[in-house]
Amino acid sequence: MTKNQRGKLYVFALGGLDEIGKNMYVVQYENDIVVIDSGLMFPEEDMLGIDIVIPDITYLVENREKVRGIILTHGHEDHIGGLPYILRQLNVPIFATKLTMGLVEHKLREAHLLNDTKRHVINNQSEIKLGSHLKATFFNTNHSIPDSVGVCIETPEGAVVHTGDFKFDLTPVGGRVADMHKMAEIGKKGVLCLLSDSTNAERPGFTGSERTVGDGIKEVFRKAKQRVIVATFASNIHRIQQVVDACHTYGRKLAVVGRSMVNVVNIASELGYLEIPSDLLIDPDEINHLPANKVAVISTGSQGESMSALTRMANASHRKVEILPGDTVIIAATPIPGNEKLIGRTVDQLFRIGADVVYSTTSHVHVSGHGSQEDLKLMLSLMKPKYFIPIHGEYRMLRAHAQLAESVGVRPENIFICDNGDTVEFSDGKARYGPKIQTGKVLIDGLGVGDVGNIVLRDRKLLSQDGILVVVVTLSKTNGTILSGPDIISRGFVYVRESEQLLEEANRIVSQTMEKCMREQVSEWASLKTSIRDALSKFLFEKTRRRPMILPIIMEV
Amino acid sequence: MTKNQRGKLYVFALGGLDEIGKNMYVVQYENDIVVIDSGLMFPEEDMLGIDIVIPDITYLVENREKVRGIILTHGHEDHIGGLPYILRQLNVPIFATKLTMGLVEHKLREAHLLNDTKRHVINNQSEIKLGSHLKATFFNTNHSIPDSVGVCIETPEGAVVHTGDFKFDLTPVGGRVADMHKMAEIGKKGVLCLLSDSTNAERPGFTGSERTVGDGIKEVFRKAKQRVIVATFASNIHRIQQVVDACHTYGRKLAVVGRSMVNVVNIASELGYLEIPSDLLIDPDEINHLPANKVAVISTGSQGESMSALTRMANASHRKVEILPGDTVIIAATPIPGNEKLIGRTVDQLFRIGADVVYSTTSHVHVSGHGSQEDLKLMLSLMKPKYFIPIHGEYRMLRAHAQLAESVGVRPENIFICDNGDTVEFSDGKARYGPKIQTGKVLIDGLGVGDVGNIVLRDRKLLSQDGILVVVVTLSKTNGTILSGPDIISRGFVYVRESEQLLEEANRIVSQTMEKCMREQVSEWASLKTSIRDALSKFLFEKTRRRPMILPIIMEV
Repeated sequence: MTKNQRGKLYVFALGGLDEIGKNMYVVQYENDIVVIDSGLMFPEEDMLGIDIVIPDITYLVENREKVRGIILTHGHEDHIGGLPYILRQLNVPIFATKLTMGLVEHKLREAHLLNDTKRHVINNQSEIKLGSHLKATFFNTNHSIPDSVGVCIETPEGAVVHTGDFKFDLTPVGGRVADMHKMAEIGKKGVLCLLSDSTNAERPGFTGSERTVGDGIKEVFRKAKQRVIVATFASNIHRIQQVVDACHTYGRKLAVVGRSMVNVVNIASELGYLEIPSDLLIDPDEINHLPANKVAVISTGSQGESMSALTRMANASHRKVEILPGDTVIIAATPIPGNEKLIGRTVDQLFRIGADVVYSTTSHVHVSGHGSQEDLKLMLSLMKPKYFIPIHGEYRMLRAHAQLAESVGVRPENIFICDNGDTVEFSDGKARYGPKIQTGKVLIDGLGVGDVGNIVLRDRKLLSQDGILVVVVTLSKTNGTILSGPDIISRGFVYVRESEQLLEEANRIVSQTMEKCMREQVSEWASLKTSIRDALSKFLFEKTRRRPMILPIIMEV
Repeated sequence: MTKNQRGKLYVFALGGLDEIGKNMYVVQYENDIVVIDSGLMFPEEDMLGIDIVIPDITYLVENREKVRGIILTHGHEDHIGGLPYILRQLNVPIFATKLTMGLVEHKLREAHLLNDTKRHVINNQSEIKLGSHLKATFFNTNHSIPDSVGVCIETPEGAVVHTGDFKFDLTPVGGRVADMHKMAEIGKKGVLCLLSDSTNAERPGFTGSERTVGDGIKEVFRKAKQRVIVATFASNIHRIQQVVDACHTYGRKLAVVGRSMVNVVNIASELGYLEIPSDLLIDPDEINHLPANKVAVISTGSQGESMSALTRMANASHRKVEILPGDTVIIAATPIPGNEKLIGRTVDQLFRIGADVVYSTTSHVHVSGHGSQEDLKLMLSLMKPKYFIPIHGEYRMLRAHAQLAESVGVRPENIFICDNGDTVEFSDGKARYGPKIQTGKVLIDGLGVGDVGNIVLRDRKLLSQDGILVVVVTLSKTNGTILSGPDIISRGFVYVRESEQLLEEANRIVSQTMEKCMREQVSEWASLKTSIRDALSKFLFEKTRRRPMILPIIMEV
């Protein structure tokens, strides 16, 4: 950022724009910085071997003394999952509602960061002073996890509102309606700039109420003759509550299965977000001791994830739960883009076992947690922002959201479709693009944070396509003659036993190349290696139309 | 198959069941075998580096003298794409309608197989005698490629009907309505067994008419102020015709872009399946010489494929077509499962350039070529089969189709949900499961057919996740001492410059392990290699939580 920040307000994203994931937005006024959310992203399909992705927070680290805290809008991984990595570099207070904080604390405990982190539980009545210029207030929203909030940051330039993820659910499970009156009040006082969730900006209409899913689930319970297994997102506590209610209504005990499901059910029950009759829960070990029509199971695995509880059950490899012919399985979720095939395979497996499967292609067992076009227009109409920055979405979603904003009266020149790192600078009530901030993707692979970059990924990609051939040869230090080899070892290229002849020929090619190099008195190893690589690569491509990685190694004795 | 086949009819699949792709169905009566379709499948995401997959036709090769021919129902790759590989092993006559044959001939010409293959063009009036027992007749269907047919194989046991891929389009583009009267006639005469397309068996209602897509496209053309670029499946000639018509109506010239699009347009025009006014087509080079509102482009790339014409245009790397702000791009397709992200990225890119993008999420620019539940029930009702085998679909689709069959009166015990290789044996009007036939997936990688198996794929998977470390050491033949090394070379593991210390430590671990082995007089290389691999693997996992492939190589001098 430039030196001359006096009287200027900056709003920007370090993650969350042109992508779904690693949400992290920043509001800065002079020396006061507040961060909203700190999420992770799951790797794209070309990020081979990568576990998760977090934002590059170089800017925040360089300005650490200005960062007044991180506000968390809700407890989903794309909003809190980056914390264990971020807090190691940036030890600042965090602010979150009770449930969100419960989920965060679990995460920080596992990362041995809990005691070192200042934590403040907030609610929709809280007013948080952040530095000398900023104040945060909060309004309740509806989302697919309870206790979600939007944030209003009051600044000397005006109010900046961040909606968090939201929809309007007028018949919410749990009864906590969105603070529409408070939103209207904020809007009436005047909003300088609105940042709003664009996930479903391409989808017409209103998003349905979570309660409709409960009705669908109850209907399945009513008809089920044997056990009912429900797989859904562990964080969708309202949906879990509706499964609990269905169990209560139809006299079934409930077993909770899957590590993250058990974890969330524990935290949510403890904090009062799940109401479970005392004798309703059973241990998974007890399932087989009860009649099939007296049991239900709630489980992870609604995305067909290979190691999840439902997938193990479908493959008859779960230690405690076996699905039997006649059981009913409800997959209460829609596929996250990219997971369609995995889920399809799980459904196939369950049908093969003889289960009755209720899933999104054929039944109404899921609604989105994100508002559709009419929800978004309602938010825009309540907030009446002067400026608008669509957030939380890929480019086409941001763009669709911008069009919605225009349709409800935001002036087109006051809408900023930004990239991560683009800043919008406000001063004297006017906005314009400010200086660009460093940002990007930090890849996490095992314990390594940022040590896997483009070269490593390119190599993994190459290795995954056609494998590798290692060519080893030992030369004499004294006269450069070949003492041993060349030996060729391949992995992931061809099945060796069926390709002996090919590899023998390859060996001959290497020997010939080396002899030629020696005749021509090529003494640089680099040139020798290049010659071997080129000759072998050409030969193999002609014979197989494949391009394995070739790794020549020269030993000297 | 058992020896005692006298008077018995067998129906089975070598590909196409529990999958979308590599369709190949077989009808056998005593010594007469007829094959229906010969498709390829695109690799699953875990088949790293594989180009395409075809069925294992060992059974047909072993019975080659009985195979009377291959009937092709239509010209899609999942029905004809395996031919160049299959015909090399099994030189039998092929039967196809005019357009299908045109597409097949192009394929065989490229594979240098055209002159060696006996080809018979058929139509809905043809009667083909196949051996001494079988006779094939044909009925026209509607599908997303013209000239598609269903097949009725008359056998001494009764008629076996294979629908091919179909829907009922009562207002088809091109005017070729499905042969409903002929289907009714076949049904009236009696169908022993129906094999029918299950792709959309989970989808309620009727599939819409292709004509509705044309209306949508025309509407976009009407409003477009600059150039219009339409991306769709090259084989959807009816859709191409509708783009041609829209160009004609709104006074635009049309450039054809993308190798397969050019190829199909040529073949279809030549054979009379596309009617293009003589002065309508222009060369892509001419695009820039005409006013933007006088030009349209039809192109491949509707699935966001990385090397396709549309993707290149979106990335501004197409040699001939540049997309400019204000241009309109229609992506007239829905994502094939798995391609959602690729298409999303293309749409994002196009919006960034400033194009107006019309795509399936927000507009009606695609209908399926496969019948939905009501189409399928209509087919079942016309054919009134005694036995039913749902084909062409993943397991849940086959199962949904079985339920539809039941709902229109097929007896549940007369429905066979089969796997590839399961045979249904008919004799004396009764059906039961017969012996199992060898089948499976043959993976094609470059020029290699079947040389990449599970071991190679497993290695590629391992390599793709955490890369490889090669450990080389040269030992003395005389006394086993280390003459050179150990050297460690890594690829796809960590970026070396940032991990020097780690690799140095790794080197030390290897040296220590070798010294220990020598003290303990371990002389077997296999044991030595295992010790190195284990020690290094343990060390690296502790340090990085990664498990790269470790390849110890011992040279002896």
